[in-house]
Amino acid sequence: MAGQKSNTIVLVSGGLDSAVCLSIAFHKEQRDIYPVSFFYGQRHAKECFHADAVVQHFRNQSPRVKALEFIRIKNLFDQLVSSSSLTDSTKKIPDHFPYQDNNTIPSTFVPGRNIIFLACMAAYAEEIEAGKIYIGVNALDYSGYPDCRPAFIKAMQEAISFGTTFPKFLITPLLALTKAEIVKEGLKYNAPIKYTWSCYRGGAVPCGTCDSCKLRAKGFEAAGIKDPALEEINND
Amino acid sequence: MAGQKSNTIVLVSGGLDSAVCLSIAFHKEQRDIYPVSFFYGQRHAKECFHADAVVQHFRNQSPRVKALEFIRIKNLFDQLVSSSSLTDSTKKIPDHFPYQDNNTIPSTFVPGRNIIFLACMAAYAEEIEAGKIYIGVNALDYSGYPDCRPAFIKAMQEAISFGTTFPKFLITPLLALTKAEIVKEGLKYNAPIKYTWSCYRGGAVPCGTCDSCKLRAKGFEAAGIKDPALEEINND
Repeated sequence: MAGQKSNTIVLVSGGLDSAVCLSIAFHKEQRDIYPVSFFYGQRHAKECFHADAVVQHFRNQSPRVKALEFIRIKNLFDQLVSSSSLTDSTKKIPDHFPYQDNNTIPSTFVPGRNIIFLACMAAYAEEIEAGKIYIGVNALDYSGYPDCRPAFIKAMQEAISFGTTFPKFLITPLLALTKAEIVKEGLKYNAPIKYTWSCYRGGAVPCGTCDSCKLRAKGFEAAGIKDPALEEINND
Repeated sequence: MAGQKSNTIVLVSGGLDSAVCLSIAFHKEQRDIYPVSFFYGQRHAKECFHADAVVQHFRNQSPRVKALEFIRIKNLFDQLVSSSSLTDSTKKIPDHFPYQDNNTIPSTFVPGRNIIFLACMAAYAEEIEAGKIYIGVNALDYSGYPDCRPAFIKAMQEAISFGTTFPKFLITPLLALTKAEIVKEGLKYNAPIKYTWSCYRGGAVPCGTCDSCKLRAKGFEAAGIKDPALEEINND
């Protein structure tokens, strides 16, 4: 029973950061890995298919990686949250600007998202006896969302451990990395970057101007590497 | 905008403690009160109807009390949690025994329940600009659930405040009270105790032997008061 608690949950969104996070977990953890993804009504719901492709990449390498647990909570978010441009298609998704400079929280912030995700993963961890939960949050090259900050993660870690029957550790290997460093970690751990999707607008091809596209492009540029996902699209 | 943040959310389950909690909030808070209830697949789902009756009691007194926001997350709990006798009708709900004496967590514990409830209420608080969230948890005459302990509440309070855009306070007026004291608080604040339901078994009448029935009976006995809900049933 105690041994089984070394199972690991990894939050996989379909984006770059979580794919790198899963690749790190795959290399560092010895026991079973349970990837989890959420459909909460995000406009770029196509990221869920990318999450599945990323997970499948690792499942092809080892049966230690379990099938993606896909959790649908769109109805819940519809009921609770109406203010986010990331879930309300009548709102405009803004182009990128340097939020960190003026402490503005962009309209793409989904209130309670990471709190609810982590709460769900805590319940799931209790069931599958996972002692570790990986989440690819980043507080350096990010949009300024409050639920990506170290203080939030630390408090949530404590809440989860105190509120359940055995300790669970939140592992955030990307928390203090630049986007360029995340790209390099991805290459180091053979993350299937070409399968990932970041664009908030969720169109046929990445828009190139939203927050998520801009931060991603900045990372690849600073790392001196071409984005394999864009290469893939250009080759189509 | 700042003024609106004095709105209040109250978790109302339909049981004794949350009815007392709502009556305290009703008397102490000046601004609007948003009651929230969850259907998560609990076997005593009839408590949801009791929650509605309790809320209606206060709505008849003031339009400050909003209609019960009823959140259905049974599918989510079905997917995440299979180990609890409170949500799995193939399991046996145990009769009461003094859990605190041997540190056992009873099978009625639903992993992640209060973490998920509070996470959802944090998202909702962000939307309706509520700066306070009342929850009637109790760590004295209780079943030993880890997500009712002060350390959990404190950590969750910090996680919610760090992870959202403005501070939200978790108010737990019953945390350090005995069940008898909770009963007395209920009388003091005119809580509609007769409308409440506590029995985990959710039958036509309270079983009288489950944890929740026993703790409730203990409270009324120690307070020297007859339970108005049982009086109501006996008068039918």
